[in-house]
Amino acid sequence: MRKLLVANRGEIAVRVIRAARELGIGTVAVYSEADQDALHVKLADERVLIGPPAASRSYLNMDVIVTAAVDLGADAVHPGYGFLSERAEFAEKVTAARLAFVGPSAETIRLMGDKARARSAAEAAGVPTVPGSTGPVDGLAEALAEAEQAGYPVAVKAAAGGGGRGIRVVADAAELTEALPVARAEAQAAFGSGLVYIERFVPNARHIEVQVFGDGQNFVHLGERECSMQRRRQKVIEEAGAPGLPEHVRTAMTEAAVALAKVSGYSGAGTVEFLYDSARGEFYFIEMNTRIQVEHAVTEMVTGRDLVREQLTVASGAPLSFAQSDVEFRGHAIEIRLNAESPDFGFMPSPGVITSMRMPGGPFVRIDSGFGPGSEVSPFYDSLLAKIVVWADSRAAAVARMARALDEVEVEGVATTASFLRRVIGVAEFREGLYHTTFLEDWIAGGAGK
Amino acid sequence: MRKLLVANRGEIAVRVIRAARELGIGTVAVYSEADQDALHVKLADERVLIGPPAASRSYLNMDVIVTAAVDLGADAVHPGYGFLSERAEFAEKVTAARLAFVGPSAETIRLMGDKARARSAAEAAGVPTVPGSTGPVDGLAEALAEAEQAGYPVAVKAAAGGGGRGIRVVADAAELTEALPVARAEAQAAFGSGLVYIERFVPNARHIEVQVFGDGQNFVHLGERECSMQRRRQKVIEEAGAPGLPEHVRTAMTEAAVALAKVSGYSGAGTVEFLYDSARGEFYFIEMNTRIQVEHAVTEMVTGRDLVREQLTVASGAPLSFAQSDVEFRGHAIEIRLNAESPDFGFMPSPGVITSMRMPGGPFVRIDSGFGPGSEVSPFYDSLLAKIVVWADSRAAAVARMARALDEVEVEGVATTASFLRRVIGVAEFREGLYHTTFLEDWIAGGAGK
Repeated sequence: MRKLLVANRGEIAVRVIRAARELGIGTVAVYSEADQDALHVKLADERVLIGPPAASRSYLNMDVIVTAAVDLGADAVHPGYGFLSERAEFAEKVTAARLAFVGPSAETIRLMGDKARARSAAEAAGVPTVPGSTGPVDGLAEALAEAEQAGYPVAVKAAAGGGGRGIRVVADAAELTEALPVARAEAQAAFGSGLVYIERFVPNARHIEVQVFGDGQNFVHLGERECSMQRRRQKVIEEAGAPGLPEHVRTAMTEAAVALAKVSGYSGAGTVEFLYDSARGEFYFIEMNTRIQVEHAVTEMVTGRDLVREQLTVASGAPLSFAQSDVEFRGHAIEIRLNAESPDFGFMPSPGVITSMRMPGGPFVRIDSGFGPGSEVSPFYDSLLAKIVVWADSRAAAVARMARALDEVEVEGVATTASFLRRVIGVAEFREGLYHTTFLEDWIAGGAGK
Repeated sequence: MRKLLVANRGEIAVRVIRAARELGIGTVAVYSEADQDALHVKLADERVLIGPPAASRSYLNMDVIVTAAVDLGADAVHPGYGFLSERAEFAEKVTAARLAFVGPSAETIRLMGDKARARSAAEAAGVPTVPGSTGPVDGLAEALAEAEQAGYPVAVKAAAGGGGRGIRVVADAAELTEALPVARAEAQAAFGSGLVYIERFVPNARHIEVQVFGDGQNFVHLGERECSMQRRRQKVIEEAGAPGLPEHVRTAMTEAAVALAKVSGYSGAGTVEFLYDSARGEFYFIEMNTRIQVEHAVTEMVTGRDLVREQLTVASGAPLSFAQSDVEFRGHAIEIRLNAESPDFGFMPSPGVITSMRMPGGPFVRIDSGFGPGSEVSPFYDSLLAKIVVWADSRAAAVARMARALDEVEVEGVATTASFLRRVIGVAEFREGLYHTTFLEDWIAGGAGK
């Protein structure tokens, strides 16, 4: 690999450019008209304008991006996360142009992007999935039988739904009997299909994921991440490792993730997401993300491995640079996503020009940002201003360090979530590591977020 | 410890405030009239003006500082480095006011501050010292005998000299015979004393130091640091560990450093500095610094230990939080000192207001700075703008990372040494880890620094 086009923007584009530069690989940034002065554009060796601000006309425009890569003599394309990173068609277009795609094959992306096929792959690999009907239930009798087998409470889910919509939770057979026709009617109205399926509902579920890596032949994990601190299904705080996770669960979960990577002949960085039922001590496969994640940095901090560098070397055809036995875990890492949003106004995005920006520093603090002084936070894209990542020898020390780091943040020109996050860090449930995926929403709804 | 007065300024004051805050200890910043808007003043919980800009009337004013600590209810004082950090009298005044001094006892500071006594202590601990006359030589016969025993080339050093002044190197007995009377006359003229002593001269010497820690009962080392990249005897780049140091030398050197800490009943952080003769594979004690060093950060990066936190807990009376067997080394770390100086104009200091400041970020990059956007670099103090510290799994990767990090630096308002340092990082001798204490001066003198 001699020249890499980075098909993304913001902090992840900067992250990829940094890794490439350290490997002596030239970099091409792509940018929309809204990003002319963005940091990723400044830091790349070359840059190319790919269209107007709307992502559909620039960062999502496959043909323009592939053409730019070819025209500028790039021999590889890194998709980052979001945008085109999980579009099998993009991977196909990149490889059809005889460029290396930094990620797994289009086939793998397609497999993992299809809920039903991904679930089958997980089952084939012996990875537990959420108990329930594997497909739509036909009538009440089948629904009751499936629910009985899965164990109450169960969720009735619209097959055509997603993103948390079209879900009803019922506590027993009586409630299910009453809810089923209503759920079907609602699904029909909302999604154009009345098909529903039954799944065990896990109260106080945690979202824990495992970082895996493969080169098509060798498959390793780099431990788990706790991602249960979410708002509107967006992760807000992530940790490595998951607080209080029993060692035997951690072992089973990481082994399951590696097994799934293995059955799919995985190449590159991937994340296997699990729903964890801490009451039962059981975990279930949710999905596999076939790309680098926003929160990869916490894994880097505890393992000392550079995951993006590894993506680039594996995509160049090199084998994995380390074996499972080389992966050692040290201490604890926490990441917060600092957004340009107004927590006092329903987390409304706060675009604008950053007139001054002081990020925290000092021991074991890492900053990943696509912005610098004078940068503009555009209304066209997500509002992630910076990731602040801290490491310490214990979780308690890492929590204290994150609190200290957030106290140091000073940004002028746009509103940020710094003081909101600072309050979250101080909450007993966070300090004690006893939170689940609905904790933050409940906490905000209770008025404590202000 | 409930409230700590930080008797310093700049990045080290910020560093100490951060450690205290993470431990839940309140902080008091002291500042001169030139530092009203300095970062350490902003980040502390309380602040107190201690005098005019001249250090002699503020940061070196012991009585004003101790009085401020008492008046504000502090129960401990951290001296940082430089200023009062190695003044035994200051430690005495602090403890006389019934405050904890974060550092070793006044007695230890005094012992190590006295060249001759420190050398004797080293010898008592079995630590090698530079071969030569232990005191002034009386006549030519004695000088020749001492030189013979030390081994040529030898240095004739003015007993009252220091800091590299008053030194003549001679290759053999004939040169010594000729040089001795001249050296004496020069010493008399320059320092008011014609006394000289003889020491073996080590061509291409390296400066390697060992970080030690004690609590008065237990003594550990945290590995060595390579500090040979110097300009005017000021360290410019530091590394952990020392490139190419043979393992048996590393073992002997770290054991020697711990032995010295032990004989002095050392408490707190200390550094034992050695001159390393790589041709002979021998090392000699130079001095012990009884304080935290600028370059402690590289040790933190490779050991995962927070040295300033440890200083605070030990000064609170707690035992060392770790044993020697707990200290593990991972990867390699490099620090550069980014100064507000003009390399094109003889490294002239470049004071002024920082109108914009973009520091590097991303994986395994750490920034320690006493400045932020809008801060003023004062002509009254040293010109250290920021320490940029990187870590990687290998030295080669750390070198590439530092090069990348320096490429990202963008400071407006004052000149910096960033591009100069970037060139040093690219020099073959640095990349290969083959440099010694006079390398950088020679390289600059040869015109390569521009």
